[in-house]
Amino acid sequence: MVKKLVLIRHGSSEWNEKNLFTGWVDVKLSETGKKEAANAGKLLAESGIKPDILFTSRLSRAIQTANLALERADRLFIDVERSWRLNERHYGDLQGKNKADALEKFGPELFKTYRRSYDIPPPVIADDSDFSQANDERYADLDPSALPKTESLKLVIDRMLPFWQDRIAKELIQDKTVLVVAHGNSLRGLYKHLTGMSDDSITEFNIPTGIPLVFELDDNLKPVKEPYYLDPEAAAAGAAAVAAQGQKK
Amino acid sequence: MVKKLVLIRHGSSEWNEKNLFTGWVDVKLSETGKKEAANAGKLLAESGIKPDILFTSRLSRAIQTANLALERADRLFIDVERSWRLNERHYGDLQGKNKADALEKFGPELFKTYRRSYDIPPPVIADDSDFSQANDERYADLDPSALPKTESLKLVIDRMLPFWQDRIAKELIQDKTVLVVAHGNSLRGLYKHLTGMSDDSITEFNIPTGIPLVFELDDNLKPVKEPYYLDPEAAAAGAAAVAAQGQKK
Repeated sequence: MVKKLVLIRHGSSEWNEKNLFTGWVDVKLSETGKKEAANAGKLLAESGIKPDILFTSRLSRAIQTANLALERADRLFIDVERSWRLNERHYGDLQGKNKADALEKFGPELFKTYRRSYDIPPPVIADDSDFSQANDERYADLDPSALPKTESLKLVIDRMLPFWQDRIAKELIQDKTVLVVAHGNSLRGLYKHLTGMSDDSITEFNIPTGIPLVFELDDNLKPVKEPYYLDPEAAAAGAAAVAAQGQKK
Repeated sequence: MVKKLVLIRHGSSEWNEKNLFTGWVDVKLSETGKKEAANAGKLLAESGIKPDILFTSRLSRAIQTANLALERADRLFIDVERSWRLNERHYGDLQGKNKADALEKFGPELFKTYRRSYDIPPPVIADDSDFSQANDERYADLDPSALPKTESLKLVIDRMLPFWQDRIAKELIQDKTVLVVAHGNSLRGLYKHLTGMSDDSITEFNIPTGIPLVFELDDNLKPVKEPYYLDPEAAAAGAAAVAAQGQKK
């Protein structure tokens, strides 16, 4: 039996619109983001794909997206599991900073490195920063040494994969249809794992917001065909817009 | 350490406003109900009580209430567990029927018996009724003989208590603050269990919608004081309004 995995990247947040690095800072969806979420639910409903279980990060913007999408798709009743392992990349000292200011401070080379290199993380965030999660109660039950203070994409994949292996894969193997609502980088990590995309290519690869991305997987959890978006035209436009971020502002 | 358990009864649904028996039929919140839910979240935030884990039924109106309340209280990130054992009472053949029509059909005596007796359930619903859950996928993994076709309040308590014992109580014993968002009858059952209210009294007892009800419990999960509402005046008015239902229309 072909297994279905649906990925949704959360829509626009209050900080996306201010052009700030967000990472683990818990900002809410903007009004635009809420509309994107409801539209994702509409696409899901129209596709006939019926998730049996939902996985989200611990961040409000992903959870709001999932709640609005499932309400629109009339599947609020499904089981839910949240994990910090699906959180956005921790942007270290960049968190809370304006992207234009960061570009000016670090210069285009280092700015691009911090945003787009595979394995070079930004400088760590100080524990007493307003944008640190060192004392955030939602991570209080974690081994403190596991709590990131900055991350590269590689580090995101390293901490995301155990949750894929232990929890998400388990449900797929039991033939559940799985919905994962998360973030640009945690979903990019999952995409890389499933498709075998190279370290170099994944840093240039963008998942658009609010468009369900469907994987059909075999018994070994290998894709039986190219993953596809439920609205391919909107997805292409959205990915191009994300790629232009940081350049244009 | 005193343990905290917060109960919220979902707000007004689309069918409450049409005066229909709802039970296990999955209707959504009305606009009024959504406001009640957000207000419950506001009361929770103002109280300083911070739930660590959420339990809901499998019905959309309870899940919507929880989502809106936690968004307002800024606690979307907590763990969530849903169970049919927290569902509203199954109203049997009354489901989908207008309360005024039912009153006329059965007469005031039997109507009151079906609504308010402790242990006499309404007639069972036919599997082929539009309002039956016999083929509802959300209960497909249940032993079919466990799926109710009608329930008295006693039967609700019988099926709710195992979930209290196995899951909710377990979290309280580990000193988690627990939020339960459910329905008039499943919460009434929990109230009876915790306070020892008699079979007769519980049938006359009404929990108002959208006002968090707080239990403070000792190590044996016995109340250390009277449970209290976070907005006592609104709660008193709300309970009186519920008690008048069926009489006034």
